Order: sequence, then C-alpha cells, then structure tokens
Amino acid sequence: MQFTSFTYQGKAGIGITEGGTLRGMLQGESDVPVALDQLIAGGLPALRDVAAKLKSSGRDFDLAEIKYLAPFANPGKIVCLGLNYRDHSAESGFQQPTYPALFNRFPSSLVAHEAPLVLPRVSSSFDYEGELVAVIGKPGRHISKDDALDHVIGYSIFNDGSVRDYQFKTAQWAIGKNFDGTGAFGPTFVTADALPPGGAGLRLQTRLDGQVMQDANTTDMVFDVATTVALLSECFVLQTGDVLVMGTPSGVGVARNPKVYMTAGQVCEVEIEGLGVLSNPVTAEA
Amino acid sequence: MQFTSFTYQGKAGIGITEGGTLRGMLQGESDVPVALDQLIAGGLPALRDVAAKLKSSGRDFDLAEIKYLAPFANPGKIVCLGLNYRDHSAESGFQQPTYPALFNRFPSSLVAHEAPLVLPRVSSSFDYEGELVAVIGKPGRHISKDDALDHVIGYSIFNDGSVRDYQFKTAQWAIGKNFDGTGAFGPTFVTADALPPGGAGLRLQTRLDGQVMQDANTTDMVFDVATTVALLSECFVLQTGDVLVMGTPSGVGVARNPKVYMTAGQVCEVEIEGLGVLSNPVTAEA
Repeated sequence: MQFTSFTYQGKAGIGITEGGTLRGMLQGESDVPVALDQLIAGGLPALRDVAAKLKSSGRDFDLAEIKYLAPFANPGKIVCLGLNYRDHSAESGFQQPTYPALFNRFPSSLVAHEAPLVLPRVSSSFDYEGELVAVIGKPGRHISKDDALDHVIGYSIFNDGSVRDYQFKTAQWAIGKNFDGTGAFGPTFVTADALPPGGAGLRLQTRLDGQVMQDANTTDMVFDVATTVALLSECFVLQTGDVLVMGTPSGVGVARNPKVYMTAGQVCEVEIEGLGVLSNPVTAEA
Repeated sequence: MQFTSFTYQGKAGIGITEGGTLRGMLQGESDVPVALDQLIAGGLPALRDVAAKLKSSGRDFDLAEIKYLAPFANPGKIVCLGLNYRDHSAESGFQQPTYPALFNRFPSSLVAHEAPLVLPRVSSSFDYEGELVAVIGKPGRHISKDDALDHVIGYSIFNDGSVRDYQFKTAQWAIGKNFDGTGAFGPTFVTADALPPGGAGLRLQTRLDGQVMQDANTTDMVFDVATTVALLSECFVLQTGDVLVMGTPSGVGVARNPKVYMTAGQVCEVEIEGLGVLSNPVTAEA
C-alpha cells in the first residue's frame, strides 16, 4: 500500500495511490484521521482498513492540484546514519565505522515532495544525498535483530541535503544537516508488506537536472535496517512514527572532482525502486 | 520572574516562585495557559501579566506535593554546544574549535527536576555535565549579535547526561547524548530581566552526592549566548521555545583519573547562581 499525505484547497488529506491514481479523503470528510503518524499506530491491519475505506468511499484527486506533505511532518525522532555505504565512506575520506555514525535532524529541516530545497544564503556548498527511510510502526526498547523488522511499518525516500561547509566546521556534522528546508522526505509512504524485507535489494538513484549522480542498491548498506533498529533500541524507546534515514551511497557532490553543488533553479530527484521518485526544485533562500 | 511547570494530583500547572513560595494555578482554573512555550510567545509583558494573575488569583502549592515538569517539555529544537569552555576542551583532549561543536537532543531524552536520570542497561559510563540553558522567546533568522539577546527570553539549568562509551563509538557524539532519561532540565525558568545580560557572570557548580565536581563561571564560555544565537540563526529560524544548551566546563567524570561515573542511588545536582539547583537521583534502567 502506498499512502500519500497532501493538502487540497488548504485542507489536509490522506490518499492511497494505485496505478497512478490518488484516491483520498480530506480531514473531516469521514472518521479516518488524515495524519499518517496516527494511522500507523494500528499497524498493517489498521492501514488495510483505511485503504479499503479510501477505495470505497474516497474520491480521485488530480495530482496536479494537490500539494504533497511530508509523510510524517513532525516525527519525535529523525535519526540519520552517516557513512552507511562503504563506497561513500571511501569517497569521503573516512574510515568505515564499526558502529553507525549517527546524527539527528530537527523536523524544521523537512520539506515535502515538490517543495523547494532551500539553498542557504550563507553557503554555496549545498549537496544532495539520496537515502532510504524506514519508519517505526511499533514501539520497543532492546529489540533483537530477529524481531527488528516487526517494528518497521514502511519505507520512504529522503534527500539528506547537506550544507557541506557548515557540516565540516567541526567534527560534529549536525549543523550542516539541519538548515531549514534541506531535508526532502517523500513522495509517499509505502508499507513494508509491499517491499522486500528491510527494504533491501532496491535500486537507488539520485539525479540532478536529469543527470545520474548516485546509482546504487540498498543491499550495500553497511548497517541494514534490522541491525540499525536493534542498535538504536539499546539507547531509547523507538516510538511509532520515528524515522530512520539510512545513509547515502557514493556519488555525492563534495566527493567529485570538480565538486558539484546544487544551485538555484536545478531539480534534484531521488528514485528508489518500489518507492517512487522524490523530486525537489532548488530555490535560493529568500 | 521564576516560573515553575509542574503537576499536582495529575493536573498540569504553572506557578511563580518568590521567596521559596510557589504560587500557581492548575490547567482549567483560569484562562492562563499552563504551558510555558505558549506563555513566552507574548514576551516579557505577557509573562508579567501572568505573574500578576498568579500572585493575585493563584494559591500556594506545597513543593513536597508537586511533581516538577521540564520547563519546556517538547521544544522544536534542542541545540547543544560541545567544548564551549576552554578548560573542558583541554581536559577532553580536543582542540578548542573556532565554531561551536553542535549536536541535537531529542525531547524524549529530557527529564524534569527531581525525576531520575536513567543509567542505561548497556553502559556503565554515565557522566554528568552541568550547563546553562538559554530559551528563545522571539523567532528570527539572520539575527545580528547586537540584537541576539532580544531573542532570549530566559534561562534555566541542564544536566547533559552523557553515555560516554556510546558518545565516542564514532566521531558523532549524538547517540551518547540521546539516551532516554539522560537530559535533566529545570528546576524552573527564570526570565532574562532577572539575570545579567546573556546569563554571563553566573557561578555554575555540579555536585555528585554533595561532592563538588565542576565549579566554574558562565563568563568563561567560548561562544557566549549572543554569539551562539547569531550563528545558529544563519542556519534556521530560531523559534519561540527553542532551547540552547550552552556547554559544560571542566571537571566531567570521563576526564578524571580515575574516571568518575554516576551510579544508581547517587544524586547529581547542578546549581547556577540565580537559577536554583537542578537535582536528580540516578536510577538504573528498569
């Protein structure tokens, strides 16, 4: 199942996409809550019920008339992995870590599909990073690796837009990863039952103005989704709606010679097999 | 003005503390909202009105019968500074950075005054870090250093409990700073007009079971509050209720010989002049 969070004429809605058609409802049109973080709390059975209701009682929305929302607009935790593909660690000049290199994003940094990625006033080294997202659907602490995927309800795509000069001002990367409007998330949320276990084996491609910049497979992640869930749950309760941003493969702009950074007017797309295409124009900060 | 967020008999309340007396109201007892993040949106004039209402129409609460809440329980951004005192950078074996070493905390890591700091199951290297907190009261982007303190509505105390082995698993410290129940915040919120500009010149002391472990002055911060506000506002809109955790001075447990870590049953206190004493028992994770 592929769920889309959107607004239409200023009202929030939830829809299910099948065969290119978005069938949905707006807030208040039924007893179906339109916020995915609420919907996923009931697990896959609840999502199946919602999908059935949307199909039977919803209506078709023209994709050109809706505005996408990030599937989860205000996650309690957005945990990001750095250096989670060996070829990316190598191109970045870092040793491959034996534990995930973790940093946090604030929800204020998120933008939805088709919304602008914002090139900051203070930097011209704004880089793309195409990534798989895993979404927690069942809370837990001290989750074993064997049980870990029971806690993942679905997947999405992320463009972990990175302000490189700020990222590398000190050894702590977080500030370069938290500029407003730099983390694109979407276009939709796809339930785990529609994908291979752990979101493995999916081709991931990042394109800048149509040119392929990253082309990899999620199987090449060093710490896979199950391992990451197990490791993180040592540290805190993973809550429903928490979001794991699983790291980027090689091909980022900062590692190229000459370096390639995103400029205003360009369009950056991240495509992951089975998850669609996350597309964002790049716009200069006002 | 010193505001206290608390619960009494399960209901949330807000109070003002003067001369050791807490005068407050519970949610629904008047039109005064009890959440400080709402109250501060009106700035100091609104807080003065609330204080007057609490004094005229509130009632006295017995401090032994209330449960403290973190002054701000769910900030949009909790930005923490590492290595912001030269003597702490030196004791930690790090070069003094020329830009703040920044990391984020999730709100899920916060605990209030008197609530347990939670020693994780997976670690025995749980360290204290006494710190000043600055709270944003007026949103802004690209704030000049001259204007920065107009955006700070008040101050509080933080114990940035650090799980050192996880903090140093990779170069990214965030995971060691985000275990559930490791960031103590409180006891109260003191408005900026009651303190020196930028919260400078305040003595800060951390005590473990009464023994002084850190003893410093907020004047010794490398990046003061105004500088930090200006720098952060290059990166994102600082929003009302965002929280800046300003870094710790020397004396942390990991830098001692032999190392000193917090163990279950101990009590850790952080005292800052004019802000009170933040006190937390240490309890083993259940």
